[in-house]
Amino acid sequence: MKNTQAPLYGAIEGGGTKFICAVGSGPNNIRAEARFETTTPKETMDHVIDFFKQQEENLGELSAIGFACFGPLDPNPASSTYGYILPTPKSGWTNANVVGMLRNEFDIPIAFDTDVNGAALGEWRWGKAQGLQTFIYLTVGTGIGGGAYVEGNLLHGLIHPEMGHILLRHDMEKDPFEGVCPFHGDCFEGLASGVAIEKRWGMRGTLLTSDHMAWDLEADYIAQALVNYALTLSPQRIIIGGGVGNLSHLLPKVQKRTRDLINGYIQSPAILENIETYIVNPGLGNRSGMLGAIALAEQSLQRAS
Amino acid sequence: MKNTQAPLYGAIEGGGTKFICAVGSGPNNIRAEARFETTTPKETMDHVIDFFKQQEENLGELSAIGFACFGPLDPNPASSTYGYILPTPKSGWTNANVVGMLRNEFDIPIAFDTDVNGAALGEWRWGKAQGLQTFIYLTVGTGIGGGAYVEGNLLHGLIHPEMGHILLRHDMEKDPFEGVCPFHGDCFEGLASGVAIEKRWGMRGTLLTSDHMAWDLEADYIAQALVNYALTLSPQRIIIGGGVGNLSHLLPKVQKRTRDLINGYIQSPAILENIETYIVNPGLGNRSGMLGAIALAEQSLQRAS
Repeated sequence: MKNTQAPLYGAIEGGGTKFICAVGSGPNNIRAEARFETTTPKETMDHVIDFFKQQEENLGELSAIGFACFGPLDPNPASSTYGYILPTPKSGWTNANVVGMLRNEFDIPIAFDTDVNGAALGEWRWGKAQGLQTFIYLTVGTGIGGGAYVEGNLLHGLIHPEMGHILLRHDMEKDPFEGVCPFHGDCFEGLASGVAIEKRWGMRGTLLTSDHMAWDLEADYIAQALVNYALTLSPQRIIIGGGVGNLSHLLPKVQKRTRDLINGYIQSPAILENIETYIVNPGLGNRSGMLGAIALAEQSLQRAS
Repeated sequence: MKNTQAPLYGAIEGGGTKFICAVGSGPNNIRAEARFETTTPKETMDHVIDFFKQQEENLGELSAIGFACFGPLDPNPASSTYGYILPTPKSGWTNANVVGMLRNEFDIPIAFDTDVNGAALGEWRWGKAQGLQTFIYLTVGTGIGGGAYVEGNLLHGLIHPEMGHILLRHDMEKDPFEGVCPFHGDCFEGLASGVAIEKRWGMRGTLLTSDHMAWDLEADYIAQALVNYALTLSPQRIIIGGGVGNLSHLLPKVQKRTRDLINGYIQSPAILENIETYIVNPGLGNRSGMLGAIALAEQSLQRAS
């Protein structure tokens, strides 16, 4: 059955534990959705391909596919390893040519980017970054990662940002925890990810009460990172998602601490007077990534035509 | 006399102590140059205007003016304070409408950006960033500041980057120095600027021998900053200029320390194998800023036509 309506897009939010797939055109038009456990690249991508093929029979042909994936990955179309997962501790995925697997089955534009760049584009298209030229999407969950949209373009640069791993101040007397990052020990992710919280306090962050001392510490680490991002990338807004980042009692602490640390140096009302609209949770909740994949697909179709 | 040759540009590198002005079209064609002490905005800009008027009589009409200036400043043409110096400790310059003063005298395109964004564009046009899409220009001198070119555009964002003020790790046992930044104490500029070096060691950095312990400390602070910039902005190259940044014995220490701190996390040959071409001194020496102002003028003429 040919689709004669508006374009239908295939969306993939590829995570380390699950892949979320959808077919639709935006937040108000998701026609089908499925989740698959992340196993081997071949098995996982076969599930994705089968799902899209089935939906094409049900709903009509896809016009483009957007794939927002865990990294590190190669998002540079001019590179010989474009569409590959780069060396990763995740068993079996190093050098997996995941875009190639899609290309073998679908002769339509395919966009490929990091999960966090995808989420950023989703927020730009339908969420809290509408109309902005430069902003950051940060996820603080099991791991920490950030995507950025800069002067109207998703940021890739050398490969893509890895802003979860920046170095922060760590007062060993106040927080005698060595950190969990296998590369850097006590970098931002090493100190403040969900894994770090669970290891430091012996239970998952969601089980810690909102008045637990864990949260002042967490807010300080996140705020330190936001200060450095704000000074370096000059974002018009910072969106924080993820299982930890979305905790409602955490956001006000992060906002206040960030403003205190900047200490008036960035003389913008956005920070001086309106920090609660400068640092925000996602407008699309936990659907930024999947909807971002649709936005990536939409953008790739526009650029192809 | 009308100029019938290639366009002639007016260039202004506006610094806190001196303004350098030039007329020309690039590194091999500087037709006139002058320096003025930075006094009041009116007096300083009057010198600049008189110089350009005189050169127009000698050499022909200017096609555009590029102004790379100390900040903070408002580089957003859509803003009501476009072309102003923003609140600054520099006496008399807060809210000076420096672009307005030029506009009253010259009816040609005028580009206005930070000194470091100007230097970045100069390096992109004629120096070490030719052909790159995303890179950083950092100056480490009396103060510390950075400009960035991201996915083909100079980065402004909320206002413009202030990357000299990011927060770094500071081991008070190893370096019991409180820092000199009036806003943040021991931020990057507070710990590692020329002013900080002079205050910590009791003499100017240029007088300290290359085997002085100051330089391992300095390299560590610069490297920490570069690590955070590299992870956040994903530059294809980082150019370090300025009176401290250009010291030849410092660069190898910074390169090595940066690579050690990243510790293999960014899996790019640029960092893993070629750090000496990833972190470099400017190709234009100390002329990046003035030539960058010419590049800004050239860009503004292209955009206007």
